[in-house]
Amino acid sequence: MGFQRAPVCMIPDTTDPAGSDPALLVVDMQCGAFNADSDAPMACTATSVDGGLDRVAEYTNDLVEAARNADVPIIWGKEQHRPDLADYGAEFLCSEPIHALENSEGVSLASAMDVDDPVSRPAEYEVTKRRYDLFFRTDLEYILETYDIDTVIVTGIMTNICVHYTAHGAHQRDYAVRVPEECTAAPTEYLHEAGLKFIEYLQPDSLQSVADVIGSLETYEGNAIVRHVKETGTVDPSARR
Amino acid sequence: MGFQRAPVCMIPDTTDPAGSDPALLVVDMQCGAFNADSDAPMACTATSVDGGLDRVAEYTNDLVEAARNADVPIIWGKEQHRPDLADYGAEFLCSEPIHALENSEGVSLASAMDVDDPVSRPAEYEVTKRRYDLFFRTDLEYILETYDIDTVIVTGIMTNICVHYTAHGAHQRDYAVRVPEECTAAPTEYLHEAGLKFIEYLQPDSLQSVADVIGSLETYEGNAIVRHVKETGTVDPSARR
Amino acid sequence: MGFQRAPVCMIPDTTDPAGSDPALLVVDMQCGAFNADSDAPMACTATSVDGGLDRVAEYTNDLVEAARNADVPIIWGKEQHRPDLADYGAEFLCSEPIHALENSEGVSLASAMDVDDPVSRPAEYEVTKRRYDLFFRTDLEYILETYDIDTVIVTGIMTNICVHYTAHGAHQRDYAVRVPEECTAAPTEYLHEAGLKFIEYLQPDSLQSVADVIGSLETYEGNAIVRHVKETGTVDPSARR
Amino acid sequence: MGFQRAPVCMIPDTTDPAGSDPALLVVDMQCGAFNADSDAPMACTATSVDGGLDRVAEYTNDLVEAARNADVPIIWGKEQHRPDLADYGAEFLCSEPIHALENSEGVSLASAMDVDDPVSRPAEYEVTKRRYDLFFRTDLEYILETYDIDTVIVTGIMTNICVHYTAHGAHQRDYAVRVPEECTAAPTEYLHEAGLKFIEYLQPDSLQSVADVIGSLETYEGNAIVRHVKETGTVDPSARR
Repeated sequence: MGFQRAPVCMIPDTTDPAGSDPALLVVDMQCGAFNADSDAPMACTATSVDGGLDRVAEYTNDLVEAARNADVPIIWGKEQHRPDLADYGAEFLCSEPIHALENSEGVSLASAMDVDDPVSRPAEYEVTKRRYDLFFRTDLEYILETYDIDTVIVTGIMTNICVHYTAHGAHQRDYAVRVPEECTAAPTEYLHEAGLKFIEYLQPDSLQSVADVIGSLETYEGNAIVRHVKETGTVDPSARR
Repeated sequence: MGFQRAPVCMIPDTTDPAGSDPALLVVDMQCGAFNADSDAPMACTATSVDGGLDRVAEYTNDLVEAARNADVPIIWGKEQHRPDLADYGAEFLCSEPIHALENSEGVSLASAMDVDDPVSRPAEYEVTKRRYDLFFRTDLEYILETYDIDTVIVTGIMTNICVHYTAHGAHQRDYAVRVPEECTAAPTEYLHEAGLKFIEYLQPDSLQSVADVIGSLETYEGNAIVRHVKETGTVDPSARR
Repeated sequence: MGFQRAPVCMIPDTTDPAGSDPALLVVDMQCGAFNADSDAPMACTATSVDGGLDRVAEYTNDLVEAARNADVPIIWGKEQHRPDLADYGAEFLCSEPIHALENSEGVSLASAMDVDDPVSRPAEYEVTKRRYDLFFRTDLEYILETYDIDTVIVTGIMTNICVHYTAHGAHQRDYAVRVPEECTAAPTEYLHEAGLKFIEYLQPDSLQSVADVIGSLETYEGNAIVRHVKETGTVDPSARR
Repeated sequence: MGFQRAPVCMIPDTTDPAGSDPALLVVDMQCGAFNADSDAPMACTATSVDGGLDRVAEYTNDLVEAARNADVPIIWGKEQHRPDLADYGAEFLCSEPIHALENSEGVSLASAMDVDDPVSRPAEYEVTKRRYDLFFRTDLEYILETYDIDTVIVTGIMTNICVHYTAHGAHQRDYAVRVPEECTAAPTEYLHEAGLKFIEYLQPDSLQSVADVIGSLETYEGNAIVRHVKETGTVDPSARR
């Protein structure tokens, strides 16, 4: 073996806008949500934000760029369901129309997410989820464990649902949470504000401006294992350039 | 809806106010929350309800009585922490003062819960939780599995935190949820209403009046395993009177 | 035994070789394991069985056919790891060489599994796992919940590892387990026998002959939701032919 | 905040007999298991060890003493079931007679465990479990997270069941595992040896002699949070002497 890693701890002792050992979680920035003119079931008109989802995507693009430059791992959370809905379960009881079928156009990354080639880039990953919380019944924790993450920066849509429940999933697993407010939105101002309030209740330091998070990432020393992956193509500690 | 399937199913095909095979979860009706005059950290002034927490307790007492008469299992959820806070984790990052230490007065059942001898009664159980969601890192699911539960009726405090996150924990495990609105409260009207809205988003049929839930329980045939426990003192199927 | 209870129950009251509401789990029947002449890291020479893995595959093909005819859902468990090993974690500490990289030939279904088009068939699913137990940090439970499964028939390789730990994962979640002995194998007779003994310890009724399981499936009335999927292409209860 | 903690990582880079940041898990050293003359259902004659369970207890007493001196947190795992067996579930299908009822003599710590006052000591905890694996549906992970543990030293009975499945639970959550061989036993030599082989398969470095583990603990710098608890009575980082 031979990892050269920073001192970490599950419950970081910092109010830094990016926490101490962060990963970036981008949740559900999928076409279906952006397609507000259509009947797209995940459509999120994002009236909570001037400029709507396109503006949220711009902020998120900037944050993704900062995370890449700072050697922070990125997880692209993707809600999708099997075409026959065999994993849909209690969502049949929910208020949303049927949405996010695998292989449909609606589940692909929104075109407003103007980022190079996510997922095939080093230390970036797609994680499929079946419910709102990116932690539940997914393999997310394996990735966070590999990179010794203690803080998750959560962005995406919607503020009150997937971002909020992913923040809660992180909180109850003893991760610190950061939510850059400009990088999330909801169909109404009320739901956006309520979502933020609920997240703030969990961890008051979680709410941050995207500028502060980016500023903090610019001074972050970087995740040593991300650098190892960028150099060798693998987290395998025995791999050498 | 309109499932055409065999009588066994995790996701019940009913809008009945009590679901099809319900258990009652009473969450955090603990002294600490009722002690609004003191500095008690879980104190919940419950201004969202006329009559405050005492009124919530009265409604809940009625519901507990109905559940007992209807042969419905009852789980008394109890948040408590080890005295040295070794299980407190990310709650150090949260907005609440330190609360609910094991063996403190604050964790005992509130005196306004005027019910006979909970827990020592047949088919009633106490489940300790360390976070908000009664499902997470607890043995609750074993009890629900034993009684073949597909619906959880969630009551207690606070609407936006423990009741809401327990409802979410149930939802993402494919249980139907019912929340009798009079049986939950929050420190402010805003938090109470927001908590209900979030629960309603998960499952629109979840919000019910306590009168409707009690009315439905009066016509429920009862849980056969609860009856077996009342007759024999054990769920063991080989036990006979 | 002799439960006197309603027809819904997690813990079936039957010693039937196929349980009461079964799903078939086929675990890790992947090319890498069959390639015993190579250095393939999952190679499993299966000296525990006359005819080796090809014989195991023949028995499993028969069982898959019987499950399809009986309207039983089938889950194809597939161990695979991200190419950069970001989900590999404590497997770096294990005794196996690095194995089962996504998109490598080794992770595809072994050619000896001479079955029509798995996965694209109705009520059949692939579930990716990162460790041995098909339940852990996967979405398997959603599928089992949808089909109201109470018994899992576990087959595949290796007896002592993935089959055994998947049986254990099922056991601790209150499912009944069946393992048709001819449908699993291990590199040595000792490991095969020890794996079976450990499974038997969990649930003595779990060990069955494949002939008995197939015989029981021939008399099974079938899973109503599987039939619905075969008729309509979806589990959605509102879908009609 | 202000924890002074050692650099940790989930997947430690060491073959040290005690790992890098260890906790000691003592599993099921309960009266019921020691009572081999009786019909006690957990009775474990431990013919796998010269001197039987009393000898296992002596070794474990020494290890507990070493862990205390080394400022290592200790978790006392305790299998127990509700008196009406409401959490017993699939154990009704298992090969063991009904065992370990709460408040029965059989669940108390075996008298051969000649240690001062466990649990009331600083940084020692009791964790109740309902199945074999001490991780599953318990709050163990909260404690391990608090102390930034990356290695679990697992002892107790039986080698093939609770010790083995707890080791597996740790492995699939990316903890390193150590099992001091003299500190575990099984009813037969075969089951003991098979249990050890299965553990070794998971992590070849896991099997250690108790002497080597104790020797390593004597040189361990100690867990900083354990020291904080010994000094202040709480893990709360704001607490000062």
